[in-house]
Amino acid sequence: MATEISKILVIGGTGYIGKFVVDASAKAGHPTSVLVRESTVADPVKGKLVQSFKNSGVTLVYGDLNDHESLVNAIKQVDVVISTVGNMQIPDQTKIIAAIKEAGNVKRFFPSEFGVDVDRQNAVEPASSTFAGKVQIRRAIEAEGIPFTYVASGCFAGYFLPTMVQAGATAPPRDKVTILGDGSPKVIYNEEHDIGTYTIKAVDDPRTLNKILYIKPSKNTLSFNDLLSLWEKKIGRSLEKDYVPEEQVLKLIQESGFPINIFLAINHSIFVKGDLDNFEIDPSFGVEASELYPDVKYTTVEEYLDQFV
Amino acid sequence: MATEISKILVIGGTGYIGKFVVDASAKAGHPTSVLVRESTVADPVKGKLVQSFKNSGVTLVYGDLNDHESLVNAIKQVDVVISTVGNMQIPDQTKIIAAIKEAGNVKRFFPSEFGVDVDRQNAVEPASSTFAGKVQIRRAIEAEGIPFTYVASGCFAGYFLPTMVQAGATAPPRDKVTILGDGSPKVIYNEEHDIGTYTIKAVDDPRTLNKILYIKPSKNTLSFNDLLSLWEKKIGRSLEKDYVPEEQVLKLIQESGFPINIFLAINHSIFVKGDLDNFEIDPSFGVEASELYPDVKYTTVEEYLDQFV
Repeated sequence: MATEISKILVIGGTGYIGKFVVDASAKAGHPTSVLVRESTVADPVKGKLVQSFKNSGVTLVYGDLNDHESLVNAIKQVDVVISTVGNMQIPDQTKIIAAIKEAGNVKRFFPSEFGVDVDRQNAVEPASSTFAGKVQIRRAIEAEGIPFTYVASGCFAGYFLPTMVQAGATAPPRDKVTILGDGSPKVIYNEEHDIGTYTIKAVDDPRTLNKILYIKPSKNTLSFNDLLSLWEKKIGRSLEKDYVPEEQVLKLIQESGFPINIFLAINHSIFVKGDLDNFEIDPSFGVEASELYPDVKYTTVEEYLDQFV
Repeated sequence: MATEISKILVIGGTGYIGKFVVDASAKAGHPTSVLVRESTVADPVKGKLVQSFKNSGVTLVYGDLNDHESLVNAIKQVDVVISTVGNMQIPDQTKIIAAIKEAGNVKRFFPSEFGVDVDRQNAVEPASSTFAGKVQIRRAIEAEGIPFTYVASGCFAGYFLPTMVQAGATAPPRDKVTILGDGSPKVIYNEEHDIGTYTIKAVDDPRTLNKILYIKPSKNTLSFNDLLSLWEKKIGRSLEKDYVPEEQVLKLIQESGFPINIFLAINHSIFVKGDLDNFEIDPSFGVEASELYPDVKYTTVEEYLDQFV
């Protein structure tokens, strides 16, 4: 296995987490290609990103999820397919599954996950429907017998830590802070480059075959209360804390319109129900990334917060 | 037509806009039923709502979108089906279409719309995918030859006006305000009870058959700059205005995670592209609610803002 280095196709490579996966793949020396629409190259924002991919030696493959032929051709050129499509495209991944099936050469498929383990959560609507889409894709992959790895990456640090989940904030709180629930459940925050790195490490690793890869480094697994203590120590002052009881969170979800209700319901699952860390990882279904790859020097939450002090 | 009063089934009646539709239907004297899951009755928040429906004479029909038999039976009892399912359930409406087809008795179907006219918008991803789901349902309805009305209700007042689209706000701004784009496109805000009232008015109206019902009362159609002027006059002071150029809005959408990127992209469509009012309503495809029903005493934006002064 040591000499094997798979060719990787990333679908959704210009998305929020996709660009970090592409970057990690290229850096690790995998021949890396990214499926892009021709229109994306002309996009003022994504065009620059696509150009930076090219500069890193990444191959652009023009195609579209809805163009079966282009998808099959792109997949035939590689060994491993990683999907990082956005949440609205989750159901469309049945098209990737069909193309993988037809291509017949794929050694591993990573569907777009990168969050909670959707098979082990207690989300309420509308987050439960959001998660159900990912569950359906898991079952479709398994039904087709496609080799897989599901990456349960916890929270994106760049998405949750700069605001500490305070709506409308642009920096962590310095006076008051609102806490969903009692702040005691353990939550996991991982820096995006690290998520890319661990994902790519798993590609040619037989230990992650047909398993869930949990990214749960011990230093990044901490309750919201612990996170606040860490922050208070860094800024040398105490915050005024406003705890929102679960019943009120549930009411707020029901009273909010789309898509804020999804945002709140996902946060309810993570911060109130503690869905990222309320079960044991059993070797029958999962492995933990920082245990498998102790050489990865990941960014800790404590280090991450330094930029905001 | 004057004596006709259709029996109405609402699917999604406990949702954000659904409860107002149910309320308007019962008030207008339509025999009204609501499809509910048995589990909903036990829900701490929705259970109370369901009880209030019963108290208003609404019939609860136990069933589920995924239970075809229950759906067909519920539909067979009524003349008109109004879907107000949440955004995550939009694609599932193919199941309602199949049930309507089998039942064979439905005079009119209102799919869950209640926003922009999804056939006439310039949204970017991921809002465009969100809207595409509604477009697909429209095409499926038309392909099956099911009589329809699509309600393009503009913005929900209760969702947009209390915060004036300021993230994290709980009241309209009194010092500073952030404006997406240049604040000039016309936007429409309608109070939720009024949306329910107009929707129900359309049920037995031949003028709305196979048409888009736009709810665009003139007093509720105003630019964000006009809205701010109105508010500034009410509170007797000027706000500091921070205009965010479109290019920056697009960048922000790309850099945001789910579902905040959807929130921003929908706001981009509404406030920057002006998708609620950048075309003429042609009688070939649409009618305007306040013109059809001048007797409805709708709540104006100006009146709505009074509660926050």
